Amino acid sequence: MASDRSGCVIAVDVGGTAVKAAVVDRHGTAIARLSVPTSRDGADGVVEQLGLIADELTHAAHARLMTPVGLGVVVPGRIDEAAGVVALAGNLGWRDVPLRALAEKRTGLPVTLGHDVRAGGLAEFTLGSSRGAGDHLFLAIGTGVAGAIMLGGEPYDRGGYAGEIGHVVIEPDGVECGCGGRGCLETMASAGAIARRYAERSGAPVTAAEVAARAAAGEATAAAVWHEAVDVLVIALAGYAFALAPELIVIGGGLAGAGEQLLAPLRDRLADRLGFQRMPTVVGAELGELAGCLGAGLLAWRAAGREVRP
Amino acid sequence: MASDRSGCVIAVDVGGTAVKAAVVDRHGTAIARLSVPTSRDGADGVVEQLGLIADELTHAAHARLMTPVGLGVVVPGRIDEAAGVVALAGNLGWRDVPLRALAEKRTGLPVTLGHDVRAGGLAEFTLGSSRGAGDHLFLAIGTGVAGAIMLGGEPYDRGGYAGEIGHVVIEPDGVECGCGGRGCLETMASAGAIARRYAERSGAPVTAAEVAARAAAGEATAAAVWHEAVDVLVIALAGYAFALAPELIVIGGGLAGAGEQLLAPLRDRLADRLGFQRMPTVVGAELGELAGCLGAGLLAWRAAGREVRP
Repeated sequence: MASDRSGCVIAVDVGGTAVKAAVVDRHGTAIARLSVPTSRDGADGVVEQLGLIADELTHAAHARLMTPVGLGVVVPGRIDEAAGVVALAGNLGWRDVPLRALAEKRTGLPVTLGHDVRAGGLAEFTLGSSRGAGDHLFLAIGTGVAGAIMLGGEPYDRGGYAGEIGHVVIEPDGVECGCGGRGCLETMASAGAIARRYAERSGAPVTAAEVAARAAAGEATAAAVWHEAVDVLVIALAGYAFALAPELIVIGGGLAGAGEQLLAPLRDRLADRLGFQRMPTVVGAELGELAGCLGAGLLAWRAAGREVRP
Repeated sequence: MASDRSGCVIAVDVGGTAVKAAVVDRHGTAIARLSVPTSRDGADGVVEQLGLIADELTHAAHARLMTPVGLGVVVPGRIDEAAGVVALAGNLGWRDVPLRALAEKRTGLPVTLGHDVRAGGLAEFTLGSSRGAGDHLFLAIGTGVAGAIMLGGEPYDRGGYAGEIGHVVIEPDGVECGCGGRGCLETMASAGAIARRYAERSGAPVTAAEVAARAAAGEATAAAVWHEAVDVLVIALAGYAFALAPELIVIGGGLAGAGEQLLAPLRDRLADRLGFQRMPTVVGAELGELAGCLGAGLLAWRAAGREVRP
């Protein structure tokens, strides 16, 4: 008796290591959640996972007297949202995967494809730290670094090419990057880069979060690596702020877990760099690692003809 | 008999060294032109110049059976176009000058105030090199470096703060910049910086155009300075292209006079840097040093309720 049920959507964030999924209601709340390791069997494996996830979360929705009206999926990389195609997803090893069509065939639901960070930016704008903000930047710093350039309340897209702020050049002759360039922001200030740079100097293979903890505890090597990472983030964000003058910068992704240990020096040094330029407000994201998944839910709701009102 | 006359606007580009003005017709053509050295008597002096220019060009218009319907003025710096105020113009030494009101009082014409480079970008889009282009960048490289970020056919403004691409940080510990920062693009790749850097190494106080000529003639020091300037432009433009993925970059300002000597290596090295990112088309501006003035004319026409159709 579907007519007695309220609608919901199924939202899925396909990451390089985990697939996070949730039932998202009309207010943007994640009702039922699950997370599984990303299939190692390529796009086919992930499409099969999407099918199993849709089945399981549909049952979870029915148990709450809700019926899924659509599926939103977000993926990192270069996503052609209009075409529903993952053009290039480096850390999934995908190229030109028509994920929307494949997922619709497997699940029987209308599917919307999006980009994980742009969707995350939209989620923060609709439900989180940047509600009601004017033009701003959502920068996700995790394994990689990518941005959602929020203009007029929407992520700026350019066919999936916009927002690759992780590849702003910091050291022209620096470390080689997956993009083919050298010395990109991502090679110096991503969570992965912070862990690698610390390991190179200390010999200790620890996570970026552990580097942050050791820096906070006063360990000199960790503090130096952390300081350098903040410095290069400041250079990249200053360039962005001189060009686009955002009113707000939201820092998300795993590294944002460091909170004020990251944000306070970032604000101070950014203000120094900006000189005559207007200093944006700099805050941490509110939705944490659920941002991309909630963003997928917002895209699915939009495709179903309804905007989420929190 | 004004009713027999066709309309025109008076367009003025107030630069640090010269004030360029023209009568601009409904098709965006500059009919009568004049140029005078910028008054050294501050904003009052420039307002008086605007009055004299308006008088002279009104006579020139009448002689062609045209009547000015408005005055467009563009100025470098941070311009609050909505308020009609020059908030900060470093190379004019102005701060918080209500130029629109002052010019209206002096000339009796409706006045529109704009930013020289944003107006130049609009002129290139309407009349020049970027006619009909999608989202793109107009970068003016002259005494300083500034950009018009063209989104949806309009310069992105942010209350006058957007487009300060000259202050993207290239060398964090580099030469001090007028903005208060260090190692900005403008300190390394503006026409002024190229002349200065060449003089520092050669002892010869020549213009950037002369440095270009000497580089083309094979002089090693000039070639090295030129090469370095292109390299830092590439770093800044790559960062812009990774973030905003423009379909086109138009290079204007005095340095664009070097033509392919600038553009060819810029294209080659930018393509190298961009890796997986889409490479924009890179062209020189078409309107030359008249871009700002024509842009001022477009703004004045728009304020008069008519868009220019070339």
